[in-house]
Amino acid sequence: MDRQRGINSPNPLKVIIIGAGNVAWHLAGAIKEPYGRVEAVFSRNRTHASQVALRSATGVPVTDIASLPRDGHVYLIAVPDDAIASVAARMPQVRGVVAHTSGTLPIDALKNVVCGGYGSFYPLQTFTAGKETDMRAVPFFIESSNSLASETLDTLARTISDHVYPADSRIRAQIHLAAVFASNFSNGLWGVASDILSQSGLSLNVLAPLLHETLDKAIAIGPDAAQTGPAKRGDTQTIQKHLDRLETPELKELYSNLTNLIIKRQCQK
Amino acid sequence: MDRQRGINSPNPLKVIIIGAGNVAWHLAGAIKEPYGRVEAVFSRNRTHASQVALRSATGVPVTDIASLPRDGHVYLIAVPDDAIASVAARMPQVRGVVAHTSGTLPIDALKNVVCGGYGSFYPLQTFTAGKETDMRAVPFFIESSNSLASETLDTLARTISDHVYPADSRIRAQIHLAAVFASNFSNGLWGVASDILSQSGLSLNVLAPLLHETLDKAIAIGPDAAQTGPAKRGDTQTIQKHLDRLETPELKELYSNLTNLIIKRQCQK
Repeated sequence: MDRQRGINSPNPLKVIIIGAGNVAWHLAGAIKEPYGRVEAVFSRNRTHASQVALRSATGVPVTDIASLPRDGHVYLIAVPDDAIASVAARMPQVRGVVAHTSGTLPIDALKNVVCGGYGSFYPLQTFTAGKETDMRAVPFFIESSNSLASETLDTLARTISDHVYPADSRIRAQIHLAAVFASNFSNGLWGVASDILSQSGLSLNVLAPLLHETLDKAIAIGPDAAQTGPAKRGDTQTIQKHLDRLETPELKELYSNLTNLIIKRQCQK
Repeated sequence: MDRQRGINSPNPLKVIIIGAGNVAWHLAGAIKEPYGRVEAVFSRNRTHASQVALRSATGVPVTDIASLPRDGHVYLIAVPDDAIASVAARMPQVRGVVAHTSGTLPIDALKNVVCGGYGSFYPLQTFTAGKETDMRAVPFFIESSNSLASETLDTLARTISDHVYPADSRIRAQIHLAAVFASNFSNGLWGVASDILSQSGLSLNVLAPLLHETLDKAIAIGPDAAQTGPAKRGDTQTIQKHLDRLETPELKELYSNLTNLIIKRQCQK
C-alpha cells in the first residue's frame, strides 16, 4: 500500500481526530480525499472541535466522546501525553486502529484500553496554531501493535508526508532526546544571545541571516564540517576575552562546557 | 549621502579589495555600479585574485600589493584577523579610507599604518565560497576614525545592504559573543543531536523541518516565548530519563546546564 491507495481503492481511509490542539489542527488540514477523509473531530470544547473540523473540510465536531463514529479506520489521539490513556479509556469500543501522536509515550499506554490494533503516529515538528506548515516535509514516525495497524498507519502517514519511518519507543526516545539538544537547547542559547545583544540596543533579528545560513550549512554538510568560531579555531585569546565579558558564573560555565564540547568534537574528527 | 549616491554623483565609489577569501568574494559580487565599482583585487595568489576580480566584473587582479591603485575611495582588507595589521602596513600610502572586515579587531589596529581615515566594515554572516547570499539582508556594522571615513563606509555599506548600523569595538565584541552562543554553540549541539540520531540509523536531516521552524519562531516572537520542551514544561520525569540515557558525564552535565538555563529564563519572564 502507498499514498496512491485512494485511487486504487474506492474508499478513503476514514479518520477520527481526538483533540483540537495544534497537532490536531495541522493533521486535519493534511488528511485529504481521495486518500483519507476526516469524519469527526472530538473536543469537549465545541468551538475548538468546530475549528479543527472546519479545517478538515469534511469532519463534524463532536463534544461527547461516547458518540464518536465507530466505523473509522484510524482514531488519532492528539492530546497532551498525560491525558492520552484516560481519553483512550473513555472512547467507545472501535475496530479501527487507535494511535497517539506522542514522541515519548510508549504505545503500551493504549494496550489495555483499546480493542483492536494500536500504535503511535508521531509527526516530528513544532506546530503553531493557524500557521501553515509544509506537511509533506515533516517526518512521521510510526509504531504499531500488529500488522493491520502498521499497514493502516503507514498508509495514512504516506498520504500526508514524504518522510515516513518505522520507529519503536526506543528510537522515538532517541529522536526526542536529539530534538531537545538541537531545538530546545539551541533556542535557550538564542535567548542568551538575545540578552547580550539587547545590552547594545540590538535584537536577535541582526543574527537572523547568520543563523539561517548556519542551519542550512549544518544540514547540508554536517555540523562538524560546518563548525566555525573561536573554539573551532583554538583561538584561546578570544575565548578568554569572552569568558571575562560574561557576567554570571552560570554563563561562564556554559560557555566553557560548550567550547570544550566543540574542541573535543573537532579532535575526534 | 545614501545608496542613491551613484545616481546623484557621476562617479561611483572606487573600491579596492585586499584579500581573496569568502568575504572578499561576496563583497566583490555585491559592490555594483552605479553606486560602487571594484577597481582591483589583491591576493599574492594570482588564481584567487583573478577569481574574485572576475566575480566583481570590473576589478583587475593584483598580486603585488605595492602596485595597488592609489586613487581608490575605499580599501577593504578582507583577510584573517591576525594578518590585517601586517597587510595594512605593506599597502602603498593612499588617501582613501582603509577598513578591515573583522568583527573582533579594534580599528586602532590600523591607526599607525594608515595615512587617512580608517575603520571597520563588518558583515555579520558566515560566507561560503561560491554560494550566493542575499547581501541586502546581511547586517553591516561600521566603525570609523573620522567623519569622512564614517560617511564613506556608511554610504558603501548602504549600497550593499538594507541593514547598516554604527558599532564601536565594544558593540562588535558583544555581537561576536552573541553570535558565538547563537551560531557556533547551537551548531555544536546539532553535532550532539546528529550523534544521538546516528545511533538509530537516522541523520540530522529528520530534524531539519523542526529546526527551521524553531528558528523562525524564535526570530518572530523571541526565544523565551518560543521555548518548548521538557525544561520549559518542568517535566522532571522526562529530564531524568534523558539524563539516564546520555552516555558521558560531559553530556549529562551539558544537558543539566542547559535545562537549568531554560528553567531560570522561564522563571525570570
